[in-house]
Amino acid sequence: MTPIDREQGVGFLFTDFYQLTMAQLYFRHGLHEHSALFDYFYRSNPNYGQHNAGYCVCAGLEWFVDWMLGTRPTAKDTAYLQSLKGQTGARLFADDFIDWLGQNDLFSSLSVRAIPEGRVVHPNVPLVVIQGPLAIAQLVETPLLNHLNYQTLVATKASRIRAAARGGPIFEFGMRRAHEHGANAGARASLIGGADFSSNTAISAALGFPPKGTHAHSMVQAFIALGGSEIDAFRAYAEIYPDDCVLLVDTINTLQSGVPNAIRVFDELRRKGHRPLGIRLDSGDLAFLAIQAAKQLNAAGYQEVFVVLSNNLDELVIWQIITQIQEEAPRYGVDPDKLVGRLVYGIGTRLITSRGDSALDGVCKLVAVSDDERWQPAIKLSETKAKTLNPGNKRVWRVYDSHGKATADLIALADEDPREAETLVLRHPTDEGRYRTLQRRQISSIEPLHVDVVQTGRRVGDPPSIEAIRALRSSDLECLYPGVKRLMNPHVYHVSLSQALWDFKQGLVSSMRSSIRD
Amino acid sequence: MTPIDREQGVGFLFTDFYQLTMAQLYFRHGLHEHSALFDYFYRSNPNYGQHNAGYCVCAGLEWFVDWMLGTRPTAKDTAYLQSLKGQTGARLFADDFIDWLGQNDLFSSLSVRAIPEGRVVHPNVPLVVIQGPLAIAQLVETPLLNHLNYQTLVATKASRIRAAARGGPIFEFGMRRAHEHGANAGARASLIGGADFSSNTAISAALGFPPKGTHAHSMVQAFIALGGSEIDAFRAYAEIYPDDCVLLVDTINTLQSGVPNAIRVFDELRRKGHRPLGIRLDSGDLAFLAIQAAKQLNAAGYQEVFVVLSNNLDELVIWQIITQIQEEAPRYGVDPDKLVGRLVYGIGTRLITSRGDSALDGVCKLVAVSDDERWQPAIKLSETKAKTLNPGNKRVWRVYDSHGKATADLIALADEDPREAETLVLRHPTDEGRYRTLQRRQISSIEPLHVDVVQTGRRVGDPPSIEAIRALRSSDLECLYPGVKRLMNPHVYHVSLSQALWDFKQGLVSSMRSSIRD
Repeated sequence: MTPIDREQGVGFLFTDFYQLTMAQLYFRHGLHEHSALFDYFYRSNPNYGQHNAGYCVCAGLEWFVDWMLGTRPTAKDTAYLQSLKGQTGARLFADDFIDWLGQNDLFSSLSVRAIPEGRVVHPNVPLVVIQGPLAIAQLVETPLLNHLNYQTLVATKASRIRAAARGGPIFEFGMRRAHEHGANAGARASLIGGADFSSNTAISAALGFPPKGTHAHSMVQAFIALGGSEIDAFRAYAEIYPDDCVLLVDTINTLQSGVPNAIRVFDELRRKGHRPLGIRLDSGDLAFLAIQAAKQLNAAGYQEVFVVLSNNLDELVIWQIITQIQEEAPRYGVDPDKLVGRLVYGIGTRLITSRGDSALDGVCKLVAVSDDERWQPAIKLSETKAKTLNPGNKRVWRVYDSHGKATADLIALADEDPREAETLVLRHPTDEGRYRTLQRRQISSIEPLHVDVVQTGRRVGDPPSIEAIRALRSSDLECLYPGVKRLMNPHVYHVSLSQALWDFKQGLVSSMRSSIRD
Repeated sequence: MTPIDREQGVGFLFTDFYQLTMAQLYFRHGLHEHSALFDYFYRSNPNYGQHNAGYCVCAGLEWFVDWMLGTRPTAKDTAYLQSLKGQTGARLFADDFIDWLGQNDLFSSLSVRAIPEGRVVHPNVPLVVIQGPLAIAQLVETPLLNHLNYQTLVATKASRIRAAARGGPIFEFGMRRAHEHGANAGARASLIGGADFSSNTAISAALGFPPKGTHAHSMVQAFIALGGSEIDAFRAYAEIYPDDCVLLVDTINTLQSGVPNAIRVFDELRRKGHRPLGIRLDSGDLAFLAIQAAKQLNAAGYQEVFVVLSNNLDELVIWQIITQIQEEAPRYGVDPDKLVGRLVYGIGTRLITSRGDSALDGVCKLVAVSDDERWQPAIKLSETKAKTLNPGNKRVWRVYDSHGKATADLIALADEDPREAETLVLRHPTDEGRYRTLQRRQISSIEPLHVDVVQTGRRVGDPPSIEAIRALRSSDLECLYPGVKRLMNPHVYHVSLSQALWDFKQGLVSSMRSSIRD
């Protein structure tokens, strides 16, 4: 009956086919057990068209690790690989390779070091490094990209929306427009990045957050269709949820029907000793309607109830709404700051799909292979300098200036410790003529960003809670200069190479270029 | 270990929380068993920024139906609902409601009629109608939207890409940038809409398509890092996959290294009696490189091997590449039509995320409730006329003109049969002054678009194969005028209301408006 087996659909075969063809090649040529290093990084912050992000919030790592540690080929998976044939009808995968895939607890040979979820991150910085046998590390590339690219994208959008909302509660409402089952990862990333709650019941259950939501237009429509009215629907709702009563007021006419009816029902609730929670506006000029609704609510003695806004909100729309309220509310005798302070934001489509830029351009690249004695750097040239890989075994450091603010991320070779340098040279990653020099006294601290997450198949420590991940995000955002956090045209945060990595990379590029000319 | 239980994550709780609070309200007020009709429709075709779609290809229905028929609350789900508390600490869901949810084979009371997957569809037309007890039909709203919005979005994008590619094979490569597990639904929708194959191994296994993919840059990098060269990597690949050999030629330098090395390996293959398949270009000026690569390949006697293009392709980029080839190829002695005829397109990010417009604005609205005697129409007014619902029990018809081309979709009341009318009046859905009149002789046929898919919990007929769905798409596209299919600024296809539906709707709107004034 099920058109796709749910377990198989997200199991070992949830990968790009070429990972399997390459793995067999490594196996056949005896390269499969060479240790390899793969770096995951993204190349540019999301650009939403009229506006762009100045940083990202990384997310998705724990779900990737969970996939990696919990997945191995099933008998059904290996039977499928046995069945595949090439152009001439011959089998594509040989039995010895399939046995090798199936006999091992495959991913237990891998180690992962990474920048933890919730941290603020920047382009070209390796966020995750996979270390392990070449063929096995290769196999996790697609699941790694699939988990990290999407969750980082959405956590970033959520962080921007949180900044725009100035502390107002944010509800993630996007399930209906999400990319199918990606809704769960998207809701989780929203919670990491800045949303307070989600309407997605399944993910709320999984993560221990109370799910949020009250009613839709259909409830009011149903009462009217059966001969009743909007207020009958509101009363019915208030009767069952007297202490959790948020009423959607725009099914008929917001200011002439919805809000007055809500106030009547709130009065009835109050007389019975309950505290009405709020109203929701889901269409029209939300700022104008919020002001007018607040005026009516205030006059009736409901200065505190929430005004929930929804309908295609994102960071710029919220910014526009708050600006409009600040300009127009005084004209109607409504205190703008108090009104903004009672707004709640229901964010659907534009958060969960990261509307405007619906994909993070993260990649996972081979940067070194061991020849059994030492790491041999792997590089890839490109038509554009910016796409030439940073090769080798590397570490990432965050440099904080004398104000304690993050001033640059430094990518260095693994055997360097920039904390020991008296003078730090920060090379622009591609432009030979550009570099910064920092003296010790200009630096308050230098922090290593990579943490060991998995060591040869074993998790290092317990997975962090969402709350702990959110706390990392908050403290990292505190350390960013406001210009980098700006919603439009943010300052460019410096991501630099150490002098040693710069020299190492240039040497490799030159020798590869000269090998072409030979 | 698993941070989200995979079954629970996409089971009964995979829904917006307000569906559950509303369902309890209907249950408590004795409205839960009133028959209801919910229409699923979308309001506008995807608009990708510089360009926009003139139609959609509907997709996702069968996976929604599968979810509906295969899902019921588990003991874990009901235990979760029992645990939920409101603001005052009291339980939100009462035991009798939870028992009712748990005791019934819940969704077996629902019927579904719909426009089948693969058909070309248009804004505001009900694509799916859910009929069943109010509380139960309400509960499937979110899963319905989640499945249909995304798959229709991607099937539409795939259909446009197929049109741009002029018959060239299309491989769906987007898993790494997809919205997490949505990758499977996205790959399926791509296959429905126009892709020929996918790199996603899991979905290829589920749907019986051979998965596609050869190797990444990392394979070439690994050989070089270990002291070998690009040609060693190519030879290694050709040795294992001699009859399925597609080589990625841009790891070092496409024209100076990759293509010449590929040709040497192809020569070796040919001498052994194998037929090389192709090369892949993944960076740089793809049109220019394709011409130059073809020139080298042709000179070496490989006029037939494929040239696979990938790297941020979409319908406009493909259109640009083909145009550039047609203009520039003759200058280099390459036949442009022959070159275009051997191109293969690997489409990643921009297909699976529908880049430029990453969500379809589909909604699921209550349009009628039965009072046990007859359907009572449900309506919702709005600040904008275009958002006022088309109420009541309706049917949808496609009107074909005397050339056999689709000229309009007609939304009519359920008891109307436009095939019986001598003169057909097609009302503009919102503009009172605009309508078309068609005489019988101007019409070649009028086709009912809705099909019974589920009758009270039982599937009507077997689910169609992807091939059958694709055939529907092809034949529907044949019946569209070219202007509607145009990639930029397409003609607007007419979606009309029957005169009877128009009158019915206006009457309801007037009476609801006057009830506000009372």
